[in-house]
Amino acid sequence: MWRATILTLFPEMFPGPLGLSLAGDALARGVWELETRQIREHGIGRHRAVDDTPAGGGPGMVMRADVLAAAVDAAAPADDPRPRLLMSPRGRPLTQRRVRHLARGPGAMILCARFEGVDERIIAARGLEEVSIGDYILSGGEIAALALMDACVRLLPGVMGEELSGQEESFEDGLLEYPQYTRPRDFEGREIPEVLLSGDHGEIAKWRRAEAVKLTRARRPDLLARKED
Amino acid sequence: MWRATILTLFPEMFPGPLGLSLAGDALARGVWELETRQIREHGIGRHRAVDDTPAGGGPGMVMRADVLAAAVDAAAPADDPRPRLLMSPRGRPLTQRRVRHLARGPGAMILCARFEGVDERIIAARGLEEVSIGDYILSGGEIAALALMDACVRLLPGVMGEELSGQEESFEDGLLEYPQYTRPRDFEGREIPEVLLSGDHGEIAKWRRAEAVKLTRARRPDLLARKED
Repeated sequence: MWRATILTLFPEMFPGPLGLSLAGDALARGVWELETRQIREHGIGRHRAVDDTPAGGGPGMVMRADVLAAAVDAAAPADDPRPRLLMSPRGRPLTQRRVRHLARGPGAMILCARFEGVDERIIAARGLEEVSIGDYILSGGEIAALALMDACVRLLPGVMGEELSGQEESFEDGLLEYPQYTRPRDFEGREIPEVLLSGDHGEIAKWRRAEAVKLTRARRPDLLARKED
Repeated sequence: MWRATILTLFPEMFPGPLGLSLAGDALARGVWELETRQIREHGIGRHRAVDDTPAGGGPGMVMRADVLAAAVDAAAPADDPRPRLLMSPRGRPLTQRRVRHLARGPGAMILCARFEGVDERIIAARGLEEVSIGDYILSGGEIAALALMDACVRLLPGVMGEELSGQEESFEDGLLEYPQYTRPRDFEGREIPEVLLSGDHGEIAKWRRAEAVKLTRARRPDLLARKED
């Protein structure tokens, strides 16, 4: 069973959207498991403080390394084989390839910081892997963790149905998906491309491939460049 | 007031995590407004069908253009000044610059498709802007919409406090953030860098800038290249 353990100051954010639809059904059927841990339980003093002012000055607060270390150690002992992720805009950008790799593994421990960030020393001290879901700033790691888990869970065996597994390959292949159409044939004067109605599966496959390449070249030449690496 | 209108098959996923913490407080205080619309209300026939099989064959289902057009028209009349976004891995990658722009505007209408995608014709017919939160595949647009709204809402006046607004500039500047430290001074034998304890604000600023450049060069040379454009 794929197991996610979330360290957060807002455990009530989970499972949130992952309690419904595909991921929620799979959670209810025990295909995966979601555990949340309140970081504040490891806070310091009567007020259970988890953060302090940045050394050297500056705005905001920084989450303390000692508090986070205690939280990580309680949630994932040293022999836990799961990767320890820290959602952070400084991390390696998440890709479908990484998602597929994570989904094949035992799960993940995910540390959600609030945006002021964590004391740098916790990262090396506990072997955290910084993961970014994109080049924008969120108010905390929680929604990033939801995105990562959603991407992984839909790939778990029995969640989506085998029939769809081919579809992502194209994305992993470094191409954006070709345009899709369905009924009605005429929508406000816009027609479904003739070839898709031809029944000629070879021609359809050729057209879709060409459209995917054209779209990727126009919108995301960086994906094509990466592919040629 | 910043207004978000979400078109979705899962309105119960909202506000979800945005009902708590910074975004939730701001929602309760009326700094922003979140409205959800059930796409299925515009579905066809007794079963309120919203999708159909892909023209030309293939796995999964495609959301119908006529159903989505009715949902969009009901949610955002032609004179609604808000951008109409479609969360999609084929879209333009979301950046902090785009987030800042959206946060300054009147809000957004956000269409959340399920992963099989939408009939291509709805995009041009209703002027939808495809937005991607990253190069991975989610089970639907809902968590992507949560990420986009979270990024926008934290920038709204009065949500975060002015003091923090400087911090993102560095990200927008094309640099990853420098490492942060806080108490204790010694954590498991790891020390806070001396310069941060010196009280010399000029040296601290210089060190942080150098660390940010070093980190960005090591992890995300693409950001530096983009900056030089």
